[in-house]
Amino acid sequence: MKFKEKALKLHKKKKGKFEIKSKIKIKNKKLLSLAYSPGVAEPCKKIVEDKKNSYKYTARGNLIAIITDGTAVLGMGDIGAEAAMPVMEGKAILFKEFANVDAIPICLNTKNVDEIVKTIKLLEPSFGGINLEDISAPRCFEIEERLKKELNIPVFHDDQHGTAIVVLAGLINSLKIVKKNIKEIRIIISGAGAAGIAITKLLLAYGAKNIIVCDSKGIISKDRELNKSKREISKITNLKNEKGELKDAIKNADVFIGVSKGDILSGEDVKNMNRNSIVFALSNPNPEIKPKVAKENNAKIIATGRSDYPNQINNVLVFPGIFRGMLDYKIKNIDNKIKIAVAQAIAKSVKKLDRKHIIPDVFNKKVVRNIKEAMRNFKTVS
Amino acid sequence: MKFKEKALKLHKKKKGKFEIKSKIKIKNKKLLSLAYSPGVAEPCKKIVEDKKNSYKYTARGNLIAIITDGTAVLGMGDIGAEAAMPVMEGKAILFKEFANVDAIPICLNTKNVDEIVKTIKLLEPSFGGINLEDISAPRCFEIEERLKKELNIPVFHDDQHGTAIVVLAGLINSLKIVKKNIKEIRIIISGAGAAGIAITKLLLAYGAKNIIVCDSKGIISKDRELNKSKREISKITNLKNEKGELKDAIKNADVFIGVSKGDILSGEDVKNMNRNSIVFALSNPNPEIKPKVAKENNAKIIATGRSDYPNQINNVLVFPGIFRGMLDYKIKNIDNKIKIAVAQAIAKSVKKLDRKHIIPDVFNKKVVRNIKEAMRNFKTVS
Repeated sequence: MKFKEKALKLHKKKKGKFEIKSKIKIKNKKLLSLAYSPGVAEPCKKIVEDKKNSYKYTARGNLIAIITDGTAVLGMGDIGAEAAMPVMEGKAILFKEFANVDAIPICLNTKNVDEIVKTIKLLEPSFGGINLEDISAPRCFEIEERLKKELNIPVFHDDQHGTAIVVLAGLINSLKIVKKNIKEIRIIISGAGAAGIAITKLLLAYGAKNIIVCDSKGIISKDRELNKSKREISKITNLKNEKGELKDAIKNADVFIGVSKGDILSGEDVKNMNRNSIVFALSNPNPEIKPKVAKENNAKIIATGRSDYPNQINNVLVFPGIFRGMLDYKIKNIDNKIKIAVAQAIAKSVKKLDRKHIIPDVFNKKVVRNIKEAMRNFKTVS
Repeated sequence: MKFKEKALKLHKKKKGKFEIKSKIKIKNKKLLSLAYSPGVAEPCKKIVEDKKNSYKYTARGNLIAIITDGTAVLGMGDIGAEAAMPVMEGKAILFKEFANVDAIPICLNTKNVDEIVKTIKLLEPSFGGINLEDISAPRCFEIEERLKKELNIPVFHDDQHGTAIVVLAGLINSLKIVKKNIKEIRIIISGAGAAGIAITKLLLAYGAKNIIVCDSKGIISKDRELNKSKREISKITNLKNEKGELKDAIKNADVFIGVSKGDILSGEDVKNMNRNSIVFALSNPNPEIKPKVAKENNAKIIATGRSDYPNQINNVLVFPGIFRGMLDYKIKNIDNKIKIAVAQAIAKSVKKLDRKHIIPDVFNKKVVRNIKEAMRNFKTVS
């Protein structure tokens, strides 16, 4: 059977990928009366006394919602709420399997920013955290920003920050191998959506000085007409105000990071990069350049988003562990310091570092442990 | 340890009562690529083709949301969203344990009817059904009515219809024992909230002719100033337009059904009922009259909402089975015919009918089976 048919069959047979599990077997009237009426009134009363007790007496302390509007799902774009669910369910079981986080997938029947923000605010009392997922840019920026201000629980947009963190982890290790310094290299980022913008900001926070971001129209420079998020990028990157296309930008670059679309980079482009070039072609399922072509054109380190090539840059390395840490240490705001610490924790989880192993295997159990350990330093003292 | 302490300890130790369980163990890269990227795109595409495929390829066909605003929780009233969660979680595990229905507890941070309706509409694509719970009257009536019109998935307010169905089940069996006919008896209902109003309507649909409903101000009659739902009740009950208090109404009654508050019925009141009287004192934890007092005053059949007396009228006998049937047979609208069929299915599940066994034990496994069997006749043909 072909891969696609197998995937369909698996989903159909299982009728979705998650279910509810009771932590208490209600096997007699005694247990029924303790876990339900009348005993259940006791934890209710404790929470009336202090809302914080909801973390003690309900599932909330280990429970998050994965929320999407279905507008930017995998490579498929705006496929709608119903059709986004298989991805959200997939994410939910990865949260559980990798870090024992209970995650509820929720697909909202609206694309309106105000409605999304409002709905999530109304859902707040039920959850210990919110993972925003597959919401298209630039709406995702406003939604995250507003929710971070208005909610008392952590909010994390994985497509931005999860991706940025795992890219930084891969870059930290790559730079070790090629012996280059983040402050001295020229970095080209292709893609100015959620991922591209978050990667740019995190690399700047980590010390990068020379970043050029390209979108489908070429180099982002101050002179262009830009939306709010790209305008912000134009002020903190491309300091010499270069103009032109991706093929112009890439000349003499040390690092290429693609989070855009397949086959937009040529062998010639890679050849024009500096010696010991690093190429992260992360578009899925088609990378910005085929790894074979990049290699033939002297790329030293090549990473993709795919599991069938070496160096898979996958944010499954980030989101289970970072939510484990957020929940366990009651961390509300994931700032750049925490993101960098998490990227370093992932980078150091690699068993034996070489150019084909710049990032840990997704099944490497040290990753979640190391992330959690790193986040401990940012614990909220209450 | 005392009961209350035990209940608290159980909730604290387990940190809530439910968790997520993955249906697929992601034990290698092959499974990761089938259940998540890139394989997960295949079920997504099928749902883009036809939204109904969400029932085939996701958990939706077995997944409901239990939604409250925390305004009418058990006997505690308006305790707020966070504090309502232990009850919602309790319900969620009962759904799973009794009928293998996956239910997500959701407590909303609003009491505004429009906001509640709007939020549930936006949540619709994620669920196969909605169980409304512990929302105060008369708001609950409007919320349910609007959602039934505006959603394409079933909506069921358990405090109304679950309670009405289980009361009818108990009454069907009680009338068999005392050999009285529903059409000929005088029924007094104390309480005109969600439960009282739903019970009244269902008993009328079942054939009752003579019902008097009392609220805290006495008999509901046309001449009183009434809210919308009570005004409706005043037109279909109390046809002789009686006036007075509960103690006046109860004279020569055959059946008393209390869904109001503790200790409002005296022994004298029960003594004033007809021979072979039936007393359902369902207020929790304090019944409208103590069973012992009712018995001393010639009540033939006595039921309460409590597990420590015979004849516990508990809607845990209804909600797991009725949602099992709704999901399996794609029944969107639970009308009076279905409610009566379900009540009859519950009534016939009693092992050996006598005055101390008018209703099945909550652990009687035949109940869910019989309900499902009865609902099969109402299957939606698609």
